[in-house]
Amino acid sequence: MVKGNLLYAQSGGVTAVINATACAVIETARRKGVAVLAAKNGIIGALREELIDTSKETPSAIAALRHTPGGAFGSCRYKLKSLEQNRAQYERLIEVFRAHDIRWFLYNGGNDSADTALKISQIGKQLGYPINTIGVPKTVDNDLAVTDCCPGFGSVAKYTAVSVAEASLDVESMCESSTKVFVIEVMGRHAGWIAAAAGLAARKSGEPPHIILFPEIPLDEEAFLARVKATVERVGYCTVVVSEGVKNAAGQFLAEAGTRDAFGHTQLGGAAPVIAGLVKAKFGYKYHWALPDYLQRSARHLASKVDAEQAYAVGKAAVEYALAGQNAVMPVIVRTSDKPYRWKIASASLEKVANHEKKLPKGFITKDGYGITAAARRYLEPLIRGEDPPPYAKDGLPEYVRLKNSLVRKRLPKYAIEDK
Amino acid sequence: MVKGNLLYAQSGGVTAVINATACAVIETARRKGVAVLAAKNGIIGALREELIDTSKETPSAIAALRHTPGGAFGSCRYKLKSLEQNRAQYERLIEVFRAHDIRWFLYNGGNDSADTALKISQIGKQLGYPINTIGVPKTVDNDLAVTDCCPGFGSVAKYTAVSVAEASLDVESMCESSTKVFVIEVMGRHAGWIAAAAGLAARKSGEPPHIILFPEIPLDEEAFLARVKATVERVGYCTVVVSEGVKNAAGQFLAEAGTRDAFGHTQLGGAAPVIAGLVKAKFGYKYHWALPDYLQRSARHLASKVDAEQAYAVGKAAVEYALAGQNAVMPVIVRTSDKPYRWKIASASLEKVANHEKKLPKGFITKDGYGITAAARRYLEPLIRGEDPPPYAKDGLPEYVRLKNSLVRKRLPKYAIEDK
Repeated sequence: MVKGNLLYAQSGGVTAVINATACAVIETARRKGVAVLAAKNGIIGALREELIDTSKETPSAIAALRHTPGGAFGSCRYKLKSLEQNRAQYERLIEVFRAHDIRWFLYNGGNDSADTALKISQIGKQLGYPINTIGVPKTVDNDLAVTDCCPGFGSVAKYTAVSVAEASLDVESMCESSTKVFVIEVMGRHAGWIAAAAGLAARKSGEPPHIILFPEIPLDEEAFLARVKATVERVGYCTVVVSEGVKNAAGQFLAEAGTRDAFGHTQLGGAAPVIAGLVKAKFGYKYHWALPDYLQRSARHLASKVDAEQAYAVGKAAVEYALAGQNAVMPVIVRTSDKPYRWKIASASLEKVANHEKKLPKGFITKDGYGITAAARRYLEPLIRGEDPPPYAKDGLPEYVRLKNSLVRKRLPKYAIEDK
Repeated sequence: MVKGNLLYAQSGGVTAVINATACAVIETARRKGVAVLAAKNGIIGALREELIDTSKETPSAIAALRHTPGGAFGSCRYKLKSLEQNRAQYERLIEVFRAHDIRWFLYNGGNDSADTALKISQIGKQLGYPINTIGVPKTVDNDLAVTDCCPGFGSVAKYTAVSVAEASLDVESMCESSTKVFVIEVMGRHAGWIAAAAGLAARKSGEPPHIILFPEIPLDEEAFLARVKATVERVGYCTVVVSEGVKNAAGQFLAEAGTRDAFGHTQLGGAAPVIAGLVKAKFGYKYHWALPDYLQRSARHLASKVDAEQAYAVGKAAVEYALAGQNAVMPVIVRTSDKPYRWKIASASLEKVANHEKKLPKGFITKDGYGITAAARRYLEPLIRGEDPPPYAKDGLPEYVRLKNSLVRKRLPKYAIEDK
């Protein structure tokens, strides 16, 4: 068996369960006698040679990662350029790998990260430094190709569906004399996966959410407003879910076309107030709007058990694949059965994953454009199943862990990162 | 023992645990052989003679109220005028009570409701109709006098503290290359109780939230911005909690002074984007902001166990007081010990509760105005203790109950409510 170290790095927006993957990586590697270094703040740390020595962490600290949200080693938004544009960066990475005897590299992220992992596996070969590179899936956006779903999505889906159900009970109780229209904005700039998950809150036809606005469908103001009115007249109130990615007929994001702050700056992530304002202007209904923002993707307290298990499983498989000599692959989730829901992990080529985007199928949106179909429900519902609450301390707060994150001694000259 | 029915009504903004009080009222009355009617949509339903027959609900449906958010019978924002201004309304209420043999009236709400309950007890005497009126405390605002805390507050406090801790872990992981300032807006138009509860997320000095903006303290922009900068430079990011009630130096609500939507309408509940905009304009830091709105007060999935128990206890005591012949009182929570936290229920005169507002003590805010003191923590921390999750169905959603809410036959002429 090849000797050496394994490097793990988190990339892109974090999730409620990305640390469950980290936990699996470290626990699995420890069982196999392999030391794990973690890049501080993702690929930036790898370039800067800021490498965390995970052997300094106790088994219980590592075990607690399984239920701790955020990215324990730091993540980043930093896309490596193409090999042609910045070959030096890839060479630097290989230099760092060589200096620290890194033989296995696990890159835990979304689409861009799969692409980066693929490139690193290629440059390693070119430079004659054998490095087994594994992409590990993670994204609340659920837009990775090949895998049936993405770790991180199930938990944001559960948070969103539960929150919509709860807030709607609140609005329903008060609608006779108070708020009649409640708007909640969810993440999803390019695809309506999270918006669709909100639809799970409605177990029966007619239950809230009454209207979902998907980024896939440009907003038809008149039709939307007519639907709001009909809903308020039928059930007394209307719960609207709006994706941050919804555009108007002119193709502009609602948030950018609409609200500006006191200084005239565009308010990003503000589709909900625009929608609420439309309703208020037309009908005068009292409204409220919510924008959970990061709360939705960090709500580990309400994680989906299926999601947490899958996040752990891909981390475990990634180490097994790496140590078995696989390269340029990603452990993906394969759904083997809908009823009962069954899944397994399989190895997929990074080439098939990188730079593809999984769109929300057209067949998941109802013909009127405001709801989800039975097919969508069949796909989505298993992903929010089961609860996996963190342990709570006596003070009523979850026992989330903060690691020591002590860095290993640098062996290379300082390296400046350009246009971070 | 006097024969007759008991009327229960919910009033004002609902909470994650007001139905636990309803559950206690009905379960306790059933054990004593007393029938409970519930006003549909609060006092509006009492005036309209829209009375729900709770005897039609199964024991398991009533038991499920204990873990269901919102107001199961409907609530309302409707304040009865003074006896002098609209004596006819009070007389109508007594007429409805007489028509349905209502001998006990339990009014579950905040300050206004305590006042209304007091007036009803007075008019009953004047009109020679013996009615035992009990106020039952409920409000996320925690601003009722006499009681140590208000059912509903502990759960929103827990939701807020946990959400701030979780989202801050997310921001911290990404701050090297992404969001540096995260702003979360919490409820509390007049008092900073919920903002203060957010401070519980910081178990140690220096932990997030780094800055709390209280409605008690007008915003000093320069000092605030300097604090944001110092925090970002020290820890890499800054979590700011802003109460919806924060005002600028000119005494205007930030939300009203600031953001307007595309139509020029004031955006209510928008203090967070104003604060985020200030930071962005001064330093150019990347920011995100969240506004959980109704999610915070309906998040039964994250209820405080202490809160749920107190909500049940006040409902139980209210029935016991009423049947024992008490009148114009409210069961309040008395804290008998901080360490260990111990509490009991006692009877307080509605006159002492009505029309008083419990302010956040000055000694709860640190001298710099941006944090909570040890005294605040000592008061607040026990209120978020313990978890009391609802049962979940196999589909991953909580099993919240929806009652039949069938109305009893009307016996009086129709009654039109003015200026609702």
